[in-house]
Amino acid sequence: MEVVQVLCMNGGIGETIVIDSVPFRPERPEFFVPVCKPVPRYLTFHLGPNFGPFRSIPAIPANSGQFRPRCEFRPQKVISMTKPIAEEAIANLYCNTLPRSIAIADLGCSSGPNTLLVVSELIKEVDKLRQKLGHDSPEYQVYLNDLPGNDFNTIFKSLPSFQKEMSYQLGPGAGPCLFSGTPGSFYGRLFPSNCLHFVHSSYSLHWLSQVPEGLDDNKGNIYMASPSPPCVFKAYYEQFQRDFSIFLKCRAEELVAGGRMVLTLLGRRSEDPSSKECCYIYELLAMALNDMVSEGLIEEDKVNSFNIPNYTPSPSELKFEVLKGGDFSIERLEVFEVNWNIYDGEFNPSNGFSNDGYGVAKYVRAVVEPLLVTHFGDAIIDEIFHRYGKIIDDRISKEKTQFTNLTISVTKKG
Amino acid sequence: MEVVQVLCMNGGIGETIVIDSVPFRPERPEFFVPVCKPVPRYLTFHLGPNFGPFRSIPAIPANSGQFRPRCEFRPQKVISMTKPIAEEAIANLYCNTLPRSIAIADLGCSSGPNTLLVVSELIKEVDKLRQKLGHDSPEYQVYLNDLPGNDFNTIFKSLPSFQKEMSYQLGPGAGPCLFSGTPGSFYGRLFPSNCLHFVHSSYSLHWLSQVPEGLDDNKGNIYMASPSPPCVFKAYYEQFQRDFSIFLKCRAEELVAGGRMVLTLLGRRSEDPSSKECCYIYELLAMALNDMVSEGLIEEDKVNSFNIPNYTPSPSELKFEVLKGGDFSIERLEVFEVNWNIYDGEFNPSNGFSNDGYGVAKYVRAVVEPLLVTHFGDAIIDEIFHRYGKIIDDRISKEKTQFTNLTISVTKKG
Repeated sequence: MEVVQVLCMNGGIGETIVIDSVPFRPERPEFFVPVCKPVPRYLTFHLGPNFGPFRSIPAIPANSGQFRPRCEFRPQKVISMTKPIAEEAIANLYCNTLPRSIAIADLGCSSGPNTLLVVSELIKEVDKLRQKLGHDSPEYQVYLNDLPGNDFNTIFKSLPSFQKEMSYQLGPGAGPCLFSGTPGSFYGRLFPSNCLHFVHSSYSLHWLSQVPEGLDDNKGNIYMASPSPPCVFKAYYEQFQRDFSIFLKCRAEELVAGGRMVLTLLGRRSEDPSSKECCYIYELLAMALNDMVSEGLIEEDKVNSFNIPNYTPSPSELKFEVLKGGDFSIERLEVFEVNWNIYDGEFNPSNGFSNDGYGVAKYVRAVVEPLLVTHFGDAIIDEIFHRYGKIIDDRISKEKTQFTNLTISVTKKG
Repeated sequence: MEVVQVLCMNGGIGETIVIDSVPFRPERPEFFVPVCKPVPRYLTFHLGPNFGPFRSIPAIPANSGQFRPRCEFRPQKVISMTKPIAEEAIANLYCNTLPRSIAIADLGCSSGPNTLLVVSELIKEVDKLRQKLGHDSPEYQVYLNDLPGNDFNTIFKSLPSFQKEMSYQLGPGAGPCLFSGTPGSFYGRLFPSNCLHFVHSSYSLHWLSQVPEGLDDNKGNIYMASPSPPCVFKAYYEQFQRDFSIFLKCRAEELVAGGRMVLTLLGRRSEDPSSKECCYIYELLAMALNDMVSEGLIEEDKVNSFNIPNYTPSPSELKFEVLKGGDFSIERLEVFEVNWNIYDGEFNPSNGFSNDGYGVAKYVRAVVEPLLVTHFGDAIIDEIFHRYGKIIDDRISKEKTQFTNLTISVTKKG
């Protein structure tokens, strides 16, 4: 099933989960030196100069796209941890090119309290620098991208007050900051050629454009899992390769030479795609579903045919795709962890998430519920997540459970 | 009152009125040769190089903007009648500059069946030309602008099927057509400098950024009317001058040299601002309101303090502002009429508008209802428009009642 169909059924306007402010932590994430696998023969991939939404794209129907969760799923903690990398990238861009106008795209911007957080920090960083260097302010053109079902209306209504606040914070002399929303899948062209200076994406690129084909043998699992047969891992990896290479090709067309891109996505440290660090969270969800199968509450075939369109690459897999495409040079590739219970003891009752397994389950629910409802119906959703919460609660009390994140910072070659 | 406040209260998501297809009429609108008044001394107006939403704009608070009706108010008939002018303009632009990428902005795009009509016709015109000339297709970047309260979500959800249909109609070889939504008042900067090639606006620019100040003496009227004192006409005209000159200054910054702009707005042929051709439709609405005052259904003070933020300029007033600004040369300035009962006997029961006075009242209601509800409350709205329909019905049976439209086509000077 195309994930865009799921999106349409849910309308993209779901509950907005308020993630309370987490103080910015100045410490840098751990630096990671990836070990790249030997580069195999370059896979022929050429979209041609006229590639665009008006033409069919191999393996991606014109209206397909990455999956859009029902809520803002960009934890402020992750954005804060990657902030130094994004700031370093835009500072280098500004100092090296001194553009009169800076076009920034945030891909998978979502609609929630963190939607405008990244771009505001980037603009402030440039304004600080241009003041230090004694230059006139550039104009800022911000493109907020997400799938057409995202709630752009809510973002747009918040812009006048956001712009007023930015104006106050930046003070006199700062250039105009102009916002547009760009609906569409980032696995296709979104912007004209050579028009972007900076691309940011956080917690979106681990969503594939579709559930990979060839997962018939993934019985009892809902993602890559340790008992999955090799063809399942192959199908997931190849879908990731197709999607990510198209993503890179499109962005390479849209970015100016010397343009920068900072991407953060869920991943893994290990080269083993069945590694617990990336699969465990969904293995526990499969456990809850299989419990319900054993009690006759869900048909076994339903679970066997359900698979989540995610891929959590290793650093070397990510690096391999960037090198294969040849359009970007890698400036940084870092890996860091955040706990499943993402508040790390900073639980605030007002944010709606408790700091236990049920809170983690609620968080995952907000992300994957549209997929589950489409496949299983909505009558059993509460029961699934009650069981899931109980299972997670048991595990986090006994072991260290973390999401692994990859951040890659690249420069478009001249 | 700032009209943006009205917008916020109504949320911008109202009933969408389906205006059925009216066949394109190939005949050209009447050509009009305007007689310009003597140009008075240039009024000092300078926004400075850093002007933008981050800075305060004299007389227009940062978050104000033109009024947004509750529905699509861009009659297909008017769009069809101005189509040759818009096509001529984009054809000249394309042939003179052969750009590799064409950025088109539709200002006041609304959200309804005609939202994508204009841009699709413009793209088809360019594609036809580039095929005739044997050139590769340019890329198309379309910016759809309206106030932040406009229902962009609905537009964005319609884009995948629209793009599929466009792809089919254009055939192979056409360049990518990329869409963004740009929320904000067009009485301020919306786009980066020198980034647009073509600006279109239909049935939006007669909305002022705010109700003019100094209308205390306009008692018993709700717009400029024959009994209004001279200070009322002066206040309306000066507000129009301020707004329209800011509009031109902003677009001059955003358009490339040689860029084109085609604007259609309600206006009048006469130099007399109390002319029936522009004021009559609201004089009849005032009549309905005053009837209700006389019956004790509405307080007199309420009517006295209500004024509609419209201005319907004469061709020479429009020409005067363009010449005063100095950034554009005028290619065409045309004037044409459409009947109040806009279907001209082509009534289709499915479109929701009858072809009588009640149909006209319903059409006007869809446009001004948010203003009326904000001022008078919603309890008496049905009664107002029932009376208004009855009054219009009487008049259109006895006299020719028409809206006067102005279309101006300009080129940004090099």
